[in-house]
This record gives sequence, C-alpha cells and structure tokens, in this order.
Amino acid sequence: MLSAARAAARNSTALSLNEDPTHFFSTRAGHRVTRDELIAWVDQYAGTQVRELIVNVNAQRTAFDSRVWTPFWKGYDPDGPDGQPLFASLPPAGQKAFRAWIHTAWQMNEERLDHIALWLRRAREKGLSPWVSIRMNDLHNVEDERHPLHSDFWRAHPEFRRIPYRGEMRDKALDFGREEVRDYTFSLIDEVAARYSFDGIELDWMRHGFHFGPGREDEGRAHLNRFMARVRRRVGRRKIAVRVPPHPESSLRLGLDAVTWAREGNCDYVVPTNFWRTADTGMPIRLWRQLLPEACLLGAGLELGLNPYVGSRMLGGKPFGYNSLATVRGAAAAYLFEGANRIYLFNYMDSQTALEDMGEYPALLREPGSLATLRDKPRRHVVTYTDTWAPGEPAAALLPARMEAQTWRAFRLAVGPVNRDLKPVLRLGVEGEAAQWSARVNGALTERGGKAGPERPWPDCPVWTFGIPANALHDGDCVVEVTAASPGAVQWVEIAFQPVA
Amino acid sequence: MLSAARAAARNSTALSLNEDPTHFFSTRAGHRVTRDELIAWVDQYAGTQVRELIVNVNAQRTAFDSRVWTPFWKGYDPDGPDGQPLFASLPPAGQKAFRAWIHTAWQMNEERLDHIALWLRRAREKGLSPWVSIRMNDLHNVEDERHPLHSDFWRAHPEFRRIPYRGEMRDKALDFGREEVRDYTFSLIDEVAARYSFDGIELDWMRHGFHFGPGREDEGRAHLNRFMARVRRRVGRRKIAVRVPPHPESSLRLGLDAVTWAREGNCDYVVPTNFWRTADTGMPIRLWRQLLPEACLLGAGLELGLNPYVGSRMLGGKPFGYNSLATVRGAAAAYLFEGANRIYLFNYMDSQTALEDMGEYPALLREPGSLATLRDKPRRHVVTYTDTWAPGEPAAALLPARMEAQTWRAFRLAVGPVNRDLKPVLRLGVEGEAAQWSARVNGALTERGGKAGPERPWPDCPVWTFGIPANALHDGDCVVEVTAASPGAVQWVEIAFQPVA
Repeated sequence: MLSAARAAARNSTALSLNEDPTHFFSTRAGHRVTRDELIAWVDQYAGTQVRELIVNVNAQRTAFDSRVWTPFWKGYDPDGPDGQPLFASLPPAGQKAFRAWIHTAWQMNEERLDHIALWLRRAREKGLSPWVSIRMNDLHNVEDERHPLHSDFWRAHPEFRRIPYRGEMRDKALDFGREEVRDYTFSLIDEVAARYSFDGIELDWMRHGFHFGPGREDEGRAHLNRFMARVRRRVGRRKIAVRVPPHPESSLRLGLDAVTWAREGNCDYVVPTNFWRTADTGMPIRLWRQLLPEACLLGAGLELGLNPYVGSRMLGGKPFGYNSLATVRGAAAAYLFEGANRIYLFNYMDSQTALEDMGEYPALLREPGSLATLRDKPRRHVVTYTDTWAPGEPAAALLPARMEAQTWRAFRLAVGPVNRDLKPVLRLGVEGEAAQWSARVNGALTERGGKAGPERPWPDCPVWTFGIPANALHDGDCVVEVTAASPGAVQWVEIAFQPVA
Repeated sequence: MLSAARAAARNSTALSLNEDPTHFFSTRAGHRVTRDELIAWVDQYAGTQVRELIVNVNAQRTAFDSRVWTPFWKGYDPDGPDGQPLFASLPPAGQKAFRAWIHTAWQMNEERLDHIALWLRRAREKGLSPWVSIRMNDLHNVEDERHPLHSDFWRAHPEFRRIPYRGEMRDKALDFGREEVRDYTFSLIDEVAARYSFDGIELDWMRHGFHFGPGREDEGRAHLNRFMARVRRRVGRRKIAVRVPPHPESSLRLGLDAVTWAREGNCDYVVPTNFWRTADTGMPIRLWRQLLPEACLLGAGLELGLNPYVGSRMLGGKPFGYNSLATVRGAAAAYLFEGANRIYLFNYMDSQTALEDMGEYPALLREPGSLATLRDKPRRHVVTYTDTWAPGEPAAALLPARMEAQTWRAFRLAVGPVNRDLKPVLRLGVEGEAAQWSARVNGALTERGGKAGPERPWPDCPVWTFGIPANALHDGDCVVEVTAASPGAVQWVEIAFQPVA
C-alpha cells in the first residue's frame, strides 16, 4: 500500500525508469556478480528524480527461476561448449557473447541471488517506488525459430501465433484472442505477484504491441478488458501500469482499451509510447489527459532513439540516432506542460543500451522529471514520427517532406513553456540547395542564418539555422511554415532553445 | 425547454439534417415563393427519421434581415441590371443566376416572409426539433474579394484575417484570436437567439474550419472556451451543438476543444465531420464517445461527397463522387454501432446539392437513423479519407496505395453489425493488372471473382470482386489485407453487403 507521503507525491511530476530483463546480466557478464554490485545498481537512482524503478522480469523467458515460464538459462549446460544445443543456431561470436550472460544469469540463480527481489527491497529502502514489469508478448529474435531467447510455450505452439499465413516478426506474436495464451501469460503475473513485493506491476503491451489477428481486435478488446479485471483481482491494491501506443485511437483499434481499463479501476498508470526506433515527440498527451480519470497517472514514454522518419540516416550515414540530454529535456518539457505526470524512460540504462555520452546520465536522472528543473536548461525539440499504428489504420508522418519550388509546408512541434532567457533557433535539415528558403514560426518570419555545425543527434544532411523573433514563440504548440525557393526535401525540423551567448 | 417525451427520445438514434443558407433561395428562384411552399419544405421531413431540422441562417451574409451582419440582398437594386455593382465581379452567366436567387431572397424579405421563423414553427408543429445553425467563419468565394457573398465586415477588415502573408482560401478566414472577430460573431448569435424560437443552436466551426493563425491555436483555445461559456449564458437552457473536425486531436490542435465545452456544460451535441469533398468513413467515433459526457449527444457528420483520396477520379473521369443511399447506409451502420446517437446529414438537401438519384431521398430520410431500419438493407462500406487536420499536423490517408510485386498492404474498414442474411463482397479498384492479386479479410482468404460492373459511386479504374467467407466477418472493424502479385496501385477499397441472389 502507498504511504500517505507517497500518495501525496504521486501526482507531482517525476521520472519512471525501466530496466530491461537482460541488460544487467549482459553488462555484468564475465565475472561473479556480488550483492554489493546489485545494491550499487539501485543506489545510482536513489536521490534522483526517478520515482518508479521498474524492473522488467521477462522477455519470452524469465530473468528469475520461474516455475510457469521458461527461465533464460533453461537448457544451459555450464560445462558444455559455446556451441551447445541452446546456442546452436547462433553464429560463433554470438554463441560466445550469449553464453557469457546466460552463464551469469545461471550462476546468480545457482547462488540464490535473486536480483529482482534484492532490487525491489533496496529501492524501497532508498525511497524509490519498486515496480515490476511484465512484457506481454516479446518478439526478440523470432526470425530465428531456434534462438535461445524463445520460450518452450512459443516454440511448442506455432498454432497460437496471431498470423499463421506470413512470417514477419509481428506475425509471430502470440494471439491473445486464445484463452491458452491469456492463461499462460496470466500465470506469470500470478507467480510474480506472489513472489515479489512491489508497489506496482506494469503490463508492457508495447513489447511488441500486436496481440490479435488483423481485424480480430474488437473481440480481443473484450478479452483484454476482462483480463485486466482478472489482474486487478490478483494484485489487489497494488498499482497497475500499462504501456500502450501513442495514439488513443490506435490503441483502441489494437484492442488495447487503456481508457476503459483505467475507468474500470483496473489500471492506475498509462504510458503511451512509441515501440522502438525513435521517441515520438508528437504524442497527443493532452488528449490522453482528457480521456483518463484524474487519479490515473499519465506517463509520456520516451524510447532511447531519436530519428526523424522511417529509413532516415543520421550523421555519418548511421541508421540510428539517439536522444541526448538536450532532446530528452525538449520532449519532457513539452509533455509535462501538456499534463503528463511522468516522463518514462525506456532503454535509458546505465550502460550499453544507454545515452551516447554517459557523462549526461546523472543530469538525465535529475532534470527531465519536472518543469522546475528543466526551466533554465538548453533543450531541443525535434520532429519525429509515430511508429505504432493498428493494422490497416492510416499512418501519418511529417518527414521527409519533398518540396517543389515555391511551395510551402507546415510542421507542428510542441515546445512546452517558453523561457525568454534562452534563445530560440529553428534548424532545418534539407536535402537540396536551401540557401534561399524561408521559414516562419507561428506566423513570424525568421531570420535566415548559415549552416549549423553538428551536435548529436544530427541528421546526415546540411542543417540551416533560422533565428526566431523573440515574441514569436509562446507556450505549447508551435507551427513552422517552410517555403522552398527551389526543389528539395526537408529531412529534419528542430526548435532549439540555446543559451544566450 | 425539451418536453419530457423529447428528452426521453434524445438519446435514441435518429437523423439530423442541415439546410444551408442559400439552397432554398437558389432552387426556388424565378418565381414568388409562397407560404405553402415553405410549409411543404418542412413537411417533407415530418414523419421521417429526421429529428433535428437544422436551419442554417448565414454564410458571411445572413438569410434574414440582420441588423448586425450583412443580409444577402444588401446592396441589391431590384430595378438595376444584372451587372449592377453587387454582381460586377461575376461573369455574365453568374450575374444572371446570382441575381435571380438574391432577388428571391430580397422579395421574400420585402414581403416579410421570414422562412426561418416559419420553418422553425412548422417543424415544431410537425414533431421535428427546430434548430438554427450559424456558420462561424464562412469562406465561400474568397478568391474573388468583390464577390457578392462577402460581408461588409470581412471586406472592411482585411487586417483581421488569420494569415496576412498568403492568399489561399483558408488564409482569408477571420482570426478568432481577435476580440473584434469574436464580438462580431457573437452579435449574430445574440440576434438569432432573440429573434427565433428554437430547441437548439449549432455553431458550425467546420465552415470553414480554420479560425486562428498557425501556431496561435493554444491561446485561441482559451478564447473559444470562454466564448462558448458566453454563448451558453446567452441561450440559456436551449441546446448548443458544434461541428468540429473528425479527430479529437486535430480539433484540439485547431483550438476547438469540444471535449472541454461539453464537460463545462457549454455544448450538448458534438458532430465530428469532414469539411467537404468526401464523407470520412474512418472517424474515431468510439474515441469521441469515450471523451464526451454521456449526456452529450454525438453525431457522425456525413458530407454528400464520397471520394477515396485527394485528387481521385470517379467513373467517367469525374473529379467528384457522391454518396448513394447504399453508401450512407454503410457509414451510418458503422457509426451507430460505434456509439453515435445521430447520423448528421450535411448537403443532403431536397434538390441541386443532393443525392444523384433523388428517387433514393425518401429512403435516405427513413433508414440510416437507426440500426433497426438498416439491418436488412444492402449497404456499402468504402474507404475514404480525413480532409481536415491542424496546420503542421501529420495527415494520413490509406489511398492510393502503390504496391510493388509481392508486397502487401492493409486497409481498415468499420462495417458495424454484420447481418448474416446478406452476402459480403470485397471490391478492390486497382490501377494495373490485378487478375492474380489476392486478398484476405480478417485473416480469411477471399475467393477471387471477376471484374465488377459499375454502380454509383464508382471509381475510374477496374474494380475486382473477392468473395468473403461467411464466417470471416464480425461486427465492428474489419481489416482487408491485399497482396499484389504484380505492381499496381489500390485506388478503391469497399466491403459491400449484397442481397443473396
């Protein structure tokens, strides 16, 4: 149960941080993990803005010694070679790396070192709210049917997959329209609820987001509404969170009716979020706030990636860009202003799957949880895209925007509260010659500057700067209107708040 | 005040019908309109499913003798030539036609024949609920600054337009961020509220949908929230309806926060709707239902047009397709199933702007207002698009869908409740050779038939039929998955429920 103090604090803003089920094993592989090392992992989050420390316990397999699901180390022979059956489908380098962290997981279990239990306990001691998270339908590596990550259940029941007639990744998700799948998944929730002491449990419907056959979501929705009620009965007064797609319509069309779950008292915390490649900076947080009961927490889910469109290239031709402290500040400021109670960090771990510049990690844990701590910090607002839509739903994206000469296009960016002590700058990444292009922000003509030098994250195209007049910006949504003097394509749109030199 | 019987009926389903401010004049031009003719106009709707008869009273000018706005006939000289100053900017044929209906309007006013008052009174006598509608920001013919439709106010104040730096149609809308514009518009509401006896007043924010400078919508929203409270104070217990864009997010981003209006008691009836060229068959009615208070009526707004994408061509190369009785039945069945209380017909008038086959009009007024009357009727569900998005918001559309060989695409269609006594058929309009294409509906393989013959509305490309297995369809959303054996483009997607031969 929540303490009175914690209950009072719950609607003030803060961070939630998700730790995935394999990161710790794989980054601590190669040596014997100690209790002190586990405690130190928690302690790095104590005294920061992190309130909910959310420990994920499973992908298809579990990070603990489950009796109802398949532990990561099931089938592992510590005395066998790297090429033993569990790893047989991997290439040699993969076998070695995989075996190393599976060994760590195996060894911790042999030593009865239940890091999840230890973390939850330590989190509580340090004033953090201990949570567990369950991935509802994980699909890592399903392109390899023999991959060591797959559960016995998934392997044994190809007939339970949501789409039997294709072989793409999402097709191989389990079909929650089947009672066997719901019961199998519930059994893990049941086990975790009995085994661990936590403030709340998250059901992560965004791993990997697709739980029904295309066009079967309406009947699926009815199943999940009942499923959530069953979870509530099981966990009692402990809290329930859900991760769902960015748009309420998409979520509903995917069978994930978080609004009804919250209204029926079967969920206390809703986190709209993109699935993976990029944080979505355009989520309709105000709309979610209108939909959810006031007592239901609303978290804005941020993935680690920051990419402007599907297939975009970042500086140096890289296929993947990452958020920096400055871009997280931007998204956080926008979303907290729009009514989010939490900024939810996913894949912002303490190494490996982490910020490019880990020197920024301490500040990342101490700034984006509140508008007060964000207020005087430089920040960047970047147009990205929504990556999760229901099957057959129209999908929308702003970029890339191909422009004919003398045409114009508009781009909307939520910038949150404006601090007049910082200097706002528009940055446009353009393929083509844009020296004569012009841009307006909220109707006001900007002052064309030169090309800007790179600062990560940065696109793989020239970026032009435009000075924004002091009075043009205001709190909330801003609209950038770009007029092309010559043909080209807009590939990056950003409003940055910079320190006054 | 609502009678007890009418209050009891208000949440059952029905039709609302909008009559525009010039249609009657222009279709009855060339003769002296009589009181009997006016009564007959109302009586055609009596005893049908039409419940709210919504009489629009203005564009930029008014259809009655306004003291605060500009009546249509202001500046008209009945003894002058067709080329008199009011009509000077029109081409000769336009001058003649325009003058004819302005003359009718002028003459009716001379004879103190206030058709609005008479219609409202007659509607009440005949058991219809009499409503008035006010267009908040009409932009017809603004490409001609001297056009006779423009108000004195709009002409006198180019500085009040929402975008001063371009000259496109939407740019010329009045800026509701200005107090003068709000007061000017309120003055008409005030006059109409005093002059006429009605059950409800509609504020039509979808004529033409854009009321603030780009990026100024957040401050505009605050203005409109107060404006709606002012309207409530003025009209008292009479009802207030609003027409707004299809998506709640877009509406909010345009400054039209219908959810807050309804929750604050300042609106009783919300109608999401496309603007014009096509009815939107993909509106998130379930989401609107979740957002609005239970007591607030929700209407699904249908425009007269039915077109699959921007720039699409219909049979014979025509740029514009129209709904038929069968396609209205389709959209109505889907939306009533999703929780709409009303099907709202816009531009479905009794001539001119009307169904192509007016033989269908009696049934149009008697079937789509209830699932009971729709149940056993053949109907057509056609993929269209949303035409109104906030500036800079990503816009989405399903069609046209270009397909490479061996790729697949999905299309979502809401079909409402399935009647097993009708035969479901998938129809795909394809540019390119599609004889070997295949399609699934809700995962079930369809049976490829031949090309289908035309039936209006119909696209300007070959249409292939696919038989849908009996058990594949279920109530609500359906997903069509198309696999292309060869390159081509899907231009039309339809599920039709046909009589069993």
